[in-house]
Amino acid sequence: MKTKTLSFRRTVNNSELSLKDVGREVTLSGWVHRRRDHGGLIFIDLRDRFGLSQVVFDPTKEKRAHEIAESLRSEDVITIEGKVSARTEGMANPNLKTGEIEVYVEHIEVLSKAKTPPFSIADEHIQVNEELRLKYRYLDLRRPGIPEKLVERHKAMMRIREALDKENFIEITTPLLGKSTPEGSRDYLVPSRIHPGTFYALPQSPQIFKQILMVAGMDRYFQIAPCLRDEDLRADRQPEFTQVDMEMSFCTVEDLFPIIENLCHEIFKDFSSQEIPKTFRQETFEWCLENYGTDKPDLRFGMPLKRIDDIAKNSSFSVFLNVLESGGSIKGICVKGGADISRKGIDEYTAYVGQLGVKGLAWMKYQEEGLSSSIVKFFPENEQKALIERFEMEKGDLLFMVADEPKRVNQSLDHLRRKLAKDRNLIDPDALSFLWVTEFPLFKWDDEENCLTTEHHPFTSPHYDDLDLIESDPLQVRSLSYDLVINGYEVASGSQRIHNGDLQAQIFKTLKISEEEVKERFGFFIEALSYGTPPHIGAALGFDRLIMILTRTENIRDVVAFPKTQKATDLMSDSPSAVPSELLRELSLEIDV
Amino acid sequence: MKTKTLSFRRTVNNSELSLKDVGREVTLSGWVHRRRDHGGLIFIDLRDRFGLSQVVFDPTKEKRAHEIAESLRSEDVITIEGKVSARTEGMANPNLKTGEIEVYVEHIEVLSKAKTPPFSIADEHIQVNEELRLKYRYLDLRRPGIPEKLVERHKAMMRIREALDKENFIEITTPLLGKSTPEGSRDYLVPSRIHPGTFYALPQSPQIFKQILMVAGMDRYFQIAPCLRDEDLRADRQPEFTQVDMEMSFCTVEDLFPIIENLCHEIFKDFSSQEIPKTFRQETFEWCLENYGTDKPDLRFGMPLKRIDDIAKNSSFSVFLNVLESGGSIKGICVKGGADISRKGIDEYTAYVGQLGVKGLAWMKYQEEGLSSSIVKFFPENEQKALIERFEMEKGDLLFMVADEPKRVNQSLDHLRRKLAKDRNLIDPDALSFLWVTEFPLFKWDDEENCLTTEHHPFTSPHYDDLDLIESDPLQVRSLSYDLVINGYEVASGSQRIHNGDLQAQIFKTLKISEEEVKERFGFFIEALSYGTPPHIGAALGFDRLIMILTRTENIRDVVAFPKTQKATDLMSDSPSAVPSELLRELSLEIDV
Repeated sequence: MKTKTLSFRRTVNNSELSLKDVGREVTLSGWVHRRRDHGGLIFIDLRDRFGLSQVVFDPTKEKRAHEIAESLRSEDVITIEGKVSARTEGMANPNLKTGEIEVYVEHIEVLSKAKTPPFSIADEHIQVNEELRLKYRYLDLRRPGIPEKLVERHKAMMRIREALDKENFIEITTPLLGKSTPEGSRDYLVPSRIHPGTFYALPQSPQIFKQILMVAGMDRYFQIAPCLRDEDLRADRQPEFTQVDMEMSFCTVEDLFPIIENLCHEIFKDFSSQEIPKTFRQETFEWCLENYGTDKPDLRFGMPLKRIDDIAKNSSFSVFLNVLESGGSIKGICVKGGADISRKGIDEYTAYVGQLGVKGLAWMKYQEEGLSSSIVKFFPENEQKALIERFEMEKGDLLFMVADEPKRVNQSLDHLRRKLAKDRNLIDPDALSFLWVTEFPLFKWDDEENCLTTEHHPFTSPHYDDLDLIESDPLQVRSLSYDLVINGYEVASGSQRIHNGDLQAQIFKTLKISEEEVKERFGFFIEALSYGTPPHIGAALGFDRLIMILTRTENIRDVVAFPKTQKATDLMSDSPSAVPSELLRELSLEIDV
Repeated sequence: MKTKTLSFRRTVNNSELSLKDVGREVTLSGWVHRRRDHGGLIFIDLRDRFGLSQVVFDPTKEKRAHEIAESLRSEDVITIEGKVSARTEGMANPNLKTGEIEVYVEHIEVLSKAKTPPFSIADEHIQVNEELRLKYRYLDLRRPGIPEKLVERHKAMMRIREALDKENFIEITTPLLGKSTPEGSRDYLVPSRIHPGTFYALPQSPQIFKQILMVAGMDRYFQIAPCLRDEDLRADRQPEFTQVDMEMSFCTVEDLFPIIENLCHEIFKDFSSQEIPKTFRQETFEWCLENYGTDKPDLRFGMPLKRIDDIAKNSSFSVFLNVLESGGSIKGICVKGGADISRKGIDEYTAYVGQLGVKGLAWMKYQEEGLSSSIVKFFPENEQKALIERFEMEKGDLLFMVADEPKRVNQSLDHLRRKLAKDRNLIDPDALSFLWVTEFPLFKWDDEENCLTTEHHPFTSPHYDDLDLIESDPLQVRSLSYDLVINGYEVASGSQRIHNGDLQAQIFKTLKISEEEVKERFGFFIEALSYGTPPHIGAALGFDRLIMILTRTENIRDVVAFPKTQKATDLMSDSPSAVPSELLRELSLEIDV
């Protein structure tokens, strides 16, 4: 069969035709989505990325085309020429954009035949095993679900670039083949052939390069940057991920926050009918931990943690009293209407926090007759009243309390709070909650190494009000770093960097890093900082996570065109794979399994 | 010294102030570009990426600030507060955007001190060795030259994305960690830790993925994609480079050419005052070879090659006659006004083509008395007249002729033509010449392997008019592939791909590749093509080359922020480098130098 040269150039795509096109001669191309034979006529739903069109083969009019149509199978690629007709009364499909018309075929070319796919493309509601979907990603992408998310991803990239370009940011591509450094997570290495025995490292982030660009005077940089980490993967990680990376000179958070807030506006403006606040709420790290037990609280729902040390100490409940005596603390959360949770339900929540290392989950229900539970009797009436007031309890509510060391109290109640929100459907899927978390501590104590270390990296600036504390009480020093939390996910992280050589030296001294060690560990970067460094501030946004929130999926593989499994395998191309031994010889490498 | 929190937030940058700002209180920040002490006053040119501002320290007014200014050195970073004044009569600097004003400093903070740089930033005309510039790239980027090119690069990326987005293309990121394949150039490999003894390959191009995306029905894809090749580098290559990669379904060149022509418009519209044609000239591969000796002719200047076999055969010049007899051919070029080239000059050009394997360079000058040279006597008068006519020679012109096997004739005259254009300044630096080269041959004969092979890859479609020749005369089959040549550089390359399984099988059969071998060499890709492949067409544009033309540089390192040397080394970070042996053990690798 000789291919007809131009016939496959469609004149419209499969979502465009409507009643106003009736009578028009058109060329349509696409995949055979479904075929139905009805009393001589053959109906085909023709599919492309844009939609479906119904095309009709009438044996009494176009015998040859009808014969070809009889041989068509799902996923064959065809092109047809024909005339647009209105569907007969009652046959219109209101669920389809092109549902009021059909095209009577005059000419058909089969462009490409298809083998039977390993899963149905047309039956979109059939659940297909994810491994099979990944192996045949090109067929998975023909079904609804992923393609729309990739389009959203593209649109978000466009909007981010436009917004940052308007603010005078320049997108600069930084190298993929970089320097291996011992900081951070594990690098992917790339052996050099030209320099035997040496390696490049793929970037975990462009952090060093973006700071270098500020030293270079580029003023405002951004990049939608590929980053790679050779980690043992968790469910929501990929070995390759994408970061919206940015840095700006002679600026502070007062400049940076509005820019990122605007980016979020651009990305999320069509997310729901709910309005996004122009500026985002800001809370300190300490406030978040106290009130939500985490530095990334999901504020789409309430149920804050309340401390009740003062009430508990007036009770005679020995569990609480013992915890208080040993320096622990007690917090609780109030579950609105939670009195309907059965004893079995409460046991399950107790087991849930038990997995997080918490010994028990105390509870009280507020019912007609007042608070009730096996421990109510240990609380004098006044203290019962105090509890009701603190948690603003109403009849029908349930109070959960955890007494333990402070860290564990926070962690378990944070998890419990989020589990309850899920179980009780407290989260409006249309809601977005944006929160800046500020004033993270600069230092932390490393119990293993028994020394002071930094929360982020040693180039993060201390809070200017806390400079006097660096020597006297370093653990109290707040930093100028901040996270953006959306719906309980840490989506962006950034900091003001140190630009002053004296201050930088003081930080290294506090960390007990000698000048020699500084040189060895931070190499050319520390040299670069010594030639006149502007004050600069920057952030990195986890782009995949942003798109996950935007497209309402919990699966990172849904927002990546060709994702890898948790074993870092590409099932489609079967990669990684063995390579010929000549290649390894060229790289001066031997495998030693 | 305690850092003053907000002072470094400039109110304007260093290019913004003019006479209309006189009297305004401003905060400026930047680098000390130059310091001049004049009769008590200290003048500083303060620099940022946007420009220079002159700031003045008057010891009679602000003693403290003046004292600090006395200690300032080049490249220190400072912030100042002060009042804008008009410069005194005659002191304005017309070469500077801010040249009519200066700022009298009231307050200064030194933000960061600078060591003495290894080369001067302010003396921009001093030539600095490129190795030193690359080692201190962050200082090199403070000088004029590279930063403007990076800004142009950013702008071009923005325009490309906007233009393709408008045409319904979706930017889709394809994986960096891919499958190693034996096709093409040498891959950079990435050892897998989780699967010992196996490797990923970094992408040489997203070719396979973009075709897969068409099979997947994504319809129109693009990506400004990082690509990597482990080659021994030529001067104009980098191990990492950038490609504007695109592919579209149900389309032909009639759809693709206008899109790429529009991209070029967007990129080059501010290049010069000369207008860019709306559609670009198209010539066949054969026409280009015949008339310019190359498939990428630079049409910014004339001097086409003309074949003179017919004239030469009537001469008695034995060199020409011998070449004709042994199946060679003779072509020439006419150098306008070239009669001024001395005998020594001609000898140098002869030596130049000699390096390309050509034994001699015949020449004739057209002077008052007619054609002259030592070989004119072998040409009857009629043939002399024919030569003059063929080359449209005028008095004062010079004719160069090469007789050799056809390939060498073309190659040497192409080189000679370009050398002459350079030497004789024939190229208007404002000119742009765009040319589509079409109808490349589909197959070529591989002399080494003594078999038929493909010019591009085996998925390139044959010209639909030549399908009958595939079996009978494969070397005559033209392909549907095409290059875009700008100013003599191959800037884009693309082709219509085969979508029909039968035709694909016929091509493999012609190439004598068995079904088994197809499976082994092309693996999952050939499987993907069997599930219904749409007709598709695509191209890749060499983005670095585009930016080189746009910014008028011959050095690819000028258009990359952090380039590598020809030895693939990053001099700034000293990469590639040795890594700790634990890392290699984790990767199950041993070095075997």
